[in-house]
Amino acid sequence: MLFHVRMDVSLPHDLDPNRRAELLAAQQDRELELQKLGVWPHLWRVVGQYSDIGVFDVPSNDELHAFLSSLPLWEFTEVEVTPLAQHPSDLAARP
Amino acid sequence: MLFHVRMDVSLPHDLDPNRRAELLAAQQDRELELQKLGVWPHLWRVVGQYSDIGVFDVPSNDELHAFLSSLPLWEFTEVEVTPLAQHPSDLAARP
Amino acid sequence: MLFHVRMDVSLPHDLDPNRRAELLAAQQDRELELQKLGVWPHLWRVVGQYSDIGVFDVPSNDELHAFLSSLPLWEFTEVEVTPLAQHPSDLAARP
Amino acid sequence: MLFHVRMDVSLPHDLDPNRRAELLAAQQDRELELQKLGVWPHLWRVVGQYSDIGVFDVPSNDELHAFLSSLPLWEFTEVEVTPLAQHPSDLAARP
Amino acid sequence: MLFHVRMDVSLPHDLDPNRRAELLAAQQDRELELQKLGVWPHLWRVVGQYSDIGVFDVPSNDELHAFLSSLPLWEFTEVEVTPLAQHPSDLAARP
Amino acid sequence: MLFHVRMDVSLPHDLDPNRRAELLAAQQDRELELQKLGVWPHLWRVVGQYSDIGVFDVPSNDELHAFLSSLPLWEFTEVEVTPLAQHPSDLAARP
Amino acid sequence: MLFHVRMDVSLPHDLDPNRRAELLAAQQDRELELQKLGVWPHLWRVVGQYSDIGVFDVPSNDELHAFLSSLPLWEFTEVEVTPLAQHPSDLAARP
Amino acid sequence: MLFHVRMDVSLPHDLDPNRRAELLAAQQDRELELQKLGVWPHLWRVVGQYSDIGVFDVPSNDELHAFLSSLPLWEFTEVEVTPLAQHPSDLAARP
Amino acid sequence: MLFHVRMDVSLPHDLDPNRRAELLAAQQDRELELQKLGVWPHLWRVVGQYSDIGVFDVPSNDELHAFLSSLPLWEFTEVEVTPLAQHPSDLAARP
Amino acid sequence: MLFHVRMDVSLPHDLDPNRRAELLAAQQDRELELQKLGVWPHLWRVVGQYSDIGVFDVPSNDELHAFLSSLPLWEFTEVEVTPLAQHPSDLAARP
Repeated sequence: MLFHVRMDVSLPHDLDPNRRAELLAAQQDRELELQKLGVWPHLWRVVGQYSDIGVFDVPSNDELHAFLSSLPLWEFTEVEVTPLAQHPSDLAARP
Repeated sequence: MLFHVRMDVSLPHDLDPNRRAELLAAQQDRELELQKLGVWPHLWRVVGQYSDIGVFDVPSNDELHAFLSSLPLWEFTEVEVTPLAQHPSDLAARP
Repeated sequence: MLFHVRMDVSLPHDLDPNRRAELLAAQQDRELELQKLGVWPHLWRVVGQYSDIGVFDVPSNDELHAFLSSLPLWEFTEVEVTPLAQHPSDLAARP
Repeated sequence: MLFHVRMDVSLPHDLDPNRRAELLAAQQDRELELQKLGVWPHLWRVVGQYSDIGVFDVPSNDELHAFLSSLPLWEFTEVEVTPLAQHPSDLAARP
Repeated sequence: MLFHVRMDVSLPHDLDPNRRAELLAAQQDRELELQKLGVWPHLWRVVGQYSDIGVFDVPSNDELHAFLSSLPLWEFTEVEVTPLAQHPSDLAARP
Repeated sequence: MLFHVRMDVSLPHDLDPNRRAELLAAQQDRELELQKLGVWPHLWRVVGQYSDIGVFDVPSNDELHAFLSSLPLWEFTEVEVTPLAQHPSDLAARP
Repeated sequence: MLFHVRMDVSLPHDLDPNRRAELLAAQQDRELELQKLGVWPHLWRVVGQYSDIGVFDVPSNDELHAFLSSLPLWEFTEVEVTPLAQHPSDLAARP
Repeated sequence: MLFHVRMDVSLPHDLDPNRRAELLAAQQDRELELQKLGVWPHLWRVVGQYSDIGVFDVPSNDELHAFLSSLPLWEFTEVEVTPLAQHPSDLAARP
Repeated sequence: MLFHVRMDVSLPHDLDPNRRAELLAAQQDRELELQKLGVWPHLWRVVGQYSDIGVFDVPSNDELHAFLSSLPLWEFTEVEVTPLAQHPSDLAARP
Repeated sequence: MLFHVRMDVSLPHDLDPNRRAELLAAQQDRELELQKLGVWPHLWRVVGQYSDIGVFDVPSNDELHAFLSSLPLWEFTEVEVTPLAQHPSDLAARP
């Protein structure tokens, strides 16, 4: 089941530099891990912004929430989730 | 080059039914055609809405505008384009 | 899987009165039918507005889209879907 | 009498960790307590966000305000209340 | 129980003049009737706009919805309801 | 002359607790004082929020500004003023 | 007493041309008349838009509403009124 | 003097086709004419939309309004004007 | 050339009290100075807010930017500039 | 390929003055450097605001993101990117 997820990150400018570096490294580790699990098939950066657009493929809403809230930067991220359905003109889904 | 495109369709309720049917059929033909050309690799429907989210892969802004404005329902569609860049954690782009 | 759905209905004032009456009757029939199927466990009216707030319980995004777009007034309805997860303090889910 | 309540929590990143832990524990205690009282029949988490959607069942506006402002995280929560009425197609209310 | 209600009226410019006149007269009759019933203790016009701000005093959400949707111009009115509680500094409520 | 005033209070979480307590006490004193003066005939709390809705009765815009900016919490309050006129259906104003 | 008034005019494209011409002429007559009365000391056009920004000088809210709603294009105009007070640095008001 | 101008065009779907064609041709003539006059040095189309972004170079606000309101599609265009100043880092303006 | 300027001031609550007092005094000096220069013919306070509405009369956009950014509180002020043109019904501009 | 870029800068008022001065100098160096590279053909300041409007000319989205995120003030800047296409009435593009 596919979900469109937009994430806008906003780090406080007075965050301790060490904590900041740790958070960024941990975030990247988790991003790679979720991709390897196959639950995050698409991940892009929005040009000019500290924002991501991605598509998740998960079996349920509860698992999606668990994945998103497991991101180390989640506390500093505005997340917007949009459920997706198959498009009637989707070429890949046609016989 | 990738672009995120959201399209919200809004057909006037007093549109002539024949013109409506023709437009919908022509729109689907063009959607399939652009997918076959390889310029529209992802296309989803937003759950509950007459709206699409897609990703285009085109060589230039001018070609993207030409493709979008060639859609038969373009006149009735609110289109929002967001340029995408490669994400630093994109698994597919790592060696 | 639960989804929060808000629906704001807006009927054109120049809609033919017979078509209007037919649409309203068909909408109510479908609302009752979906409730009987068990996919629409909660349905409320927003005080003062021609708007509904409901919760759907469906196995997938695709089925949710199919149910919502089957509503006779769908063409005249602005629909906003919000995926829900179990709340960590939900009393009903505690042993 | 039913009220739809959306709550968006936003904790300051420089909140003292002990105070934070105390607040979260106290919030959960109060959430369970209000559910046991029967005034908070539905409580969900919004997927991807530190936000709740709930339905309260209370005898008056004043009691609703007293319950909401008694939540330990109230100071850090944006609350939006929408009064609900019985839906004309509500299956549960039909003979 | 008090509710703050803002109503913004928007009549279609091509409404039949006779129907318009009938609606306006019926609206005023109903406005006077609800005031006489004691359920609409305050009613003001917003300066410069075809908009009203009022306060209703009703025993329940369902009755408030019934009153509001009984207004002849309801179909052409955007209604926003805000539940009110007693203010802790309200002079009238102090001994 | 009547003015509708909405006030949304937002206190910084790191405000000194003593200053906070002083401000809240001074605010309540001033709220009672202005009511006794007869310039603030209606004052309600918005359910679920640290927000007030009130109606002021003042001889001029300048006096209204003086009253509002004299509130001890004014610095922390977002204020929105809407001028009110007599409603053509106001029962109290009819002979 | 001064009020800042912004007016955005929006004429339906299918308005009868004769009625349109009559309305525009009547609007200009009324605009000149109100200026001659001294109640509309400032009147500007917003560059690029069918919108005006003006300042009214009136003895009361009720008279302001009467003047604004007497404009022939009022039905097609979105009006926003902002009450003004004397500025503490206003040179004209200093001895 | 430079002004940034965004123009969003919205033609009614029931506009007479002949009038539509005439308007579009007249609009293009006027766009070329203003460019030849040197008052419209930059003109771009927004990708995916019936919208333009341009920069005007004019001696005064009044002339800018005259140019913009002379466009044949002005009646169907939402126009937003932003005055521009020389940027302190503008390479072209440095000796 | 006239420009409508709205300024919303927002001072951080933890600003050093001495710096605050100095800034406020310097702001008032500059406001008086610009009025004496004749470039700021109208200046009002918005009732209930720490906001100003003014009209500037300047020979160019660059000078307007220089004047506005010379205000001591500019760093704490949200500024919105709207270019004004002569109104076709402006009484003062008629022979 | 052209992109319209709006940048709104917002520096925290408690930023260390030395770091602030360094950032501003580095930002200007980078702004000049990108202009000399030919990728930033237009750069203007928005009158009254700490905001820029510019046009970038780059071969790809990825390069645009690299240029924008290389700006020393990027962390404090809200960036909005709009892809541009050639306008059908662009005089410069006509034979």
